[in-house]
Amino acid sequence: MDTLWDKKEFLMIAGPCSVESEEQIVGIARAVKAAGAHMLRGGAFKPRTSPYDFQGLKEEGIRLLLEAKRESGLPVVTEITGVRELDLFEDVDVIQIGSRNMQNYELLKEVGRTGKPVLLKRGMAATLREFLLSAEYILAEGNPHVILCERGIRTFDDYTRNTLDLAVIPLLRGMTDLPVIADPSHGTGIASLVPPMALAAAAAGADGLMIEVHNHPEQALTDGEQAVTPEEYAALAQKVQAVRKAAGII
Amino acid sequence: MDTLWDKKEFLMIAGPCSVESEEQIVGIARAVKAAGAHMLRGGAFKPRTSPYDFQGLKEEGIRLLLEAKRESGLPVVTEITGVRELDLFEDVDVIQIGSRNMQNYELLKEVGRTGKPVLLKRGMAATLREFLLSAEYILAEGNPHVILCERGIRTFDDYTRNTLDLAVIPLLRGMTDLPVIADPSHGTGIASLVPPMALAAAAAGADGLMIEVHNHPEQALTDGEQAVTPEEYAALAQKVQAVRKAAGII
Amino acid sequence: MDTLWDKKEFLMIAGPCSVESEEQIVGIARAVKAAGAHMLRGGAFKPRTSPYDFQGLKEEGIRLLLEAKRESGLPVVTEITGVRELDLFEDVDVIQIGSRNMQNYELLKEVGRTGKPVLLKRGMAATLREFLLSAEYILAEGNPHVILCERGIRTFDDYTRNTLDLAVIPLLRGMTDLPVIADPSHGTGIASLVPPMALAAAAAGADGLMIEVHNHPEQALTDGEQAVTPEEYAALAQKVQAVRKAAGII
Amino acid sequence: MDTLWDKKEFLMIAGPCSVESEEQIVGIARAVKAAGAHMLRGGAFKPRTSPYDFQGLKEEGIRLLLEAKRESGLPVVTEITGVRELDLFEDVDVIQIGSRNMQNYELLKEVGRTGKPVLLKRGMAATLREFLLSAEYILAEGNPHVILCERGIRTFDDYTRNTLDLAVIPLLRGMTDLPVIADPSHGTGIASLVPPMALAAAAAGADGLMIEVHNHPEQALTDGEQAVTPEEYAALAQKVQAVRKAAGII
Repeated sequence: MDTLWDKKEFLMIAGPCSVESEEQIVGIARAVKAAGAHMLRGGAFKPRTSPYDFQGLKEEGIRLLLEAKRESGLPVVTEITGVRELDLFEDVDVIQIGSRNMQNYELLKEVGRTGKPVLLKRGMAATLREFLLSAEYILAEGNPHVILCERGIRTFDDYTRNTLDLAVIPLLRGMTDLPVIADPSHGTGIASLVPPMALAAAAAGADGLMIEVHNHPEQALTDGEQAVTPEEYAALAQKVQAVRKAAGII
Repeated sequence: MDTLWDKKEFLMIAGPCSVESEEQIVGIARAVKAAGAHMLRGGAFKPRTSPYDFQGLKEEGIRLLLEAKRESGLPVVTEITGVRELDLFEDVDVIQIGSRNMQNYELLKEVGRTGKPVLLKRGMAATLREFLLSAEYILAEGNPHVILCERGIRTFDDYTRNTLDLAVIPLLRGMTDLPVIADPSHGTGIASLVPPMALAAAAAGADGLMIEVHNHPEQALTDGEQAVTPEEYAALAQKVQAVRKAAGII
Repeated sequence: MDTLWDKKEFLMIAGPCSVESEEQIVGIARAVKAAGAHMLRGGAFKPRTSPYDFQGLKEEGIRLLLEAKRESGLPVVTEITGVRELDLFEDVDVIQIGSRNMQNYELLKEVGRTGKPVLLKRGMAATLREFLLSAEYILAEGNPHVILCERGIRTFDDYTRNTLDLAVIPLLRGMTDLPVIADPSHGTGIASLVPPMALAAAAAGADGLMIEVHNHPEQALTDGEQAVTPEEYAALAQKVQAVRKAAGII
Repeated sequence: MDTLWDKKEFLMIAGPCSVESEEQIVGIARAVKAAGAHMLRGGAFKPRTSPYDFQGLKEEGIRLLLEAKRESGLPVVTEITGVRELDLFEDVDVIQIGSRNMQNYELLKEVGRTGKPVLLKRGMAATLREFLLSAEYILAEGNPHVILCERGIRTFDDYTRNTLDLAVIPLLRGMTDLPVIADPSHGTGIASLVPPMALAAAAAGADGLMIEVHNHPEQALTDGEQAVTPEEYAALAQKVQAVRKAAGII
């Protein structure tokens, strides 16, 4: 993991919810790199609530993502949804395990055995103990490269997509050496809330942020309502560093 | 599914949390059959929160479960935790998808393609829509044999393992023709609450019950605190039929 | 309390959400008495989420409720929302403390000091310990006449008004001698779910039921969507007794 | 309210959970004033879950709080638990309505009619709509001086006292002109989490912070485990301003 990202640096991951086309993903990759991102995200295999919804470009999505990696120089992170896809992830830099699969232990073990960095998202109703023990399934395979990601939990609140539980950030700091990042895009589901909650996560001591960025949010195939534009992302990236300094973190 | 169980009958599934030994599973199988159960449950592949906890007897557990099937004549239901295990489930009558895997869509699709009956447990934080759309992943593979199982949701309540959400039973009756059963063992986590909540589920209109039964609950390797004895199960089974009659269901 | 209701009997409380007119409350009182109810409910002081919604007929509502008591012979239960109203409750048989006021300790103490029976509803996010300690505020005033009422908790579920948490019924049975009843009307918010959940509560061992009944649910000023008709109530009342017998409770 | 606090300034409220003695409250008042606080908090009437727990010094507590006000020059905020106490609050600057009484509408109306500033805490299971409509009960009495306070909601999370729901801060910003502050002390229940979550609230755009400060947290009669020392508070107060600047808020 050390070659991908200097752990002393705040990890900025950005990109669209789904890879949609070469033009889209390469364009966004260049824009977020210019804005200071260290890593490109983009979904190729999309775990969707309904089987009739767009399921991602799959193998072709991975191909386009790797094309964007070559064009931008950014390492890439993308979600895996099943063990049968593992071979396609050979050139992917960081494999993401999404919320729905946080307790898919067979997947955790196989991804663990690849030795690749794994970005593990907290499940919607996962306690801190369950979250850390899911990470342990990866670590127990001899793979120490796990990034924990708080992305909101399910509560009675219905005005945001999830309730971003930022207190886990300082809590986890006292329990583990693994990096802990936040995803304010899924954590709120509302683009206008992403910048303030991203800054809040930084102030709370997060090690990084995963943010959905789309050049045309209103045309996005998935989750456009929570995507910020590259311009908004660039403005946010600058503030994040200033907030961390002000909070005495760096 | 029709050869396994007459849909007009109330489905009684019983058995231990985990298959532990031939003596244990065969003994329980005979006891629950005598008490009126139609199907034997027993975990061979156990999805455990910690990688360091007992993970089930796996292949050997399936073998012992099938031995108990031969000895008792009861069809068997057991949980699958990954697609690589599918071949081992060839002689299993009903494949269970547990709560943690309710949104493991790759597993749902592959299990769907076997054409075998699938017992789908509701996820801990799944809405009714998400639950039904997970079933749809199986149905969309051309497999109509899905049994829905309410097993408790995660709420702020901490005095029970989960909050058994019985209102979904009459609600689902109006939304789908799939059978809906309840699991008061996981739904409460406390053996003394299993009988009253089992009767409550029956009164609410459930199509069946899945109950953990162990001949020596205090020695069970997993979840002994929520298991009832075969004697308690037999007493409960009789009341269930009486309650359904009194409620005007049969 | 003993003169109001024989504790060995299952307590059936019924009536409209709000007292609306003499004709309405007297008519419903007679109808629910004929259907087997032991007590009449009806709101005069209504704690409404918005200050601009109908707040109840207040003093006039109490007067009409007492008129219905005279006409039907049924004792009455109605909600209090503040200590300044206490004098108006002199002829009320049972004072209700609603969910919103479960931790309004000043009100609990003053109501406790009246010595009158108190029907205490569980708060939307109250743990069992908090619920019992709120009852203790009444008991500590030397008033042993408390009836506990489970009426649903707030969870992520959005397809019902609340999540009726029936496991508290057998749980409380082991913790207190106070009677425990259920309110499936607020517990579900949907009239068609009231009968199955009422039967479920009875099967789980409840000591009674509080159910909203309206002669014209579609014209009710408040909560009409969760009210059953007197005819539906009469049919339900009969099944309740049969279910209790079948469950071995009586 | 304008004479108490310049709305363009970030409102810093600090003080102990409970007023315990003259020495304690005057000492803390001076210390938090020196650290930059604008207002002193301290509970005299304590709404406690159990009737057998310390209920506050009541009238004497108010007297001591006003003594601390004279000594320090800081305006004071303290919680009211019932309408009968209103007369005692004549010299109190801001009246607090606690979470348990957020829907105690009779209290809201009477406090509204005093015309005094009211600090309204969100209920543990209150939606945003319910929170704003409770404020409306005060506003509708012609009293525009309401401060909204997010103090954590009740979720399945059990490692913190409550789940601080910071997304409501930017959300409320778009829905109301009322000031919105956060209480990270009750919001987490753990002193070490107070500074990071206070900074997170500031970064998210809060208008102020209410923080529990005690000179001897380990000897506090109530909630000592969530109190920071005056020294920790002073260090935090400085960072808060820097974070707000860095976030582009000031």
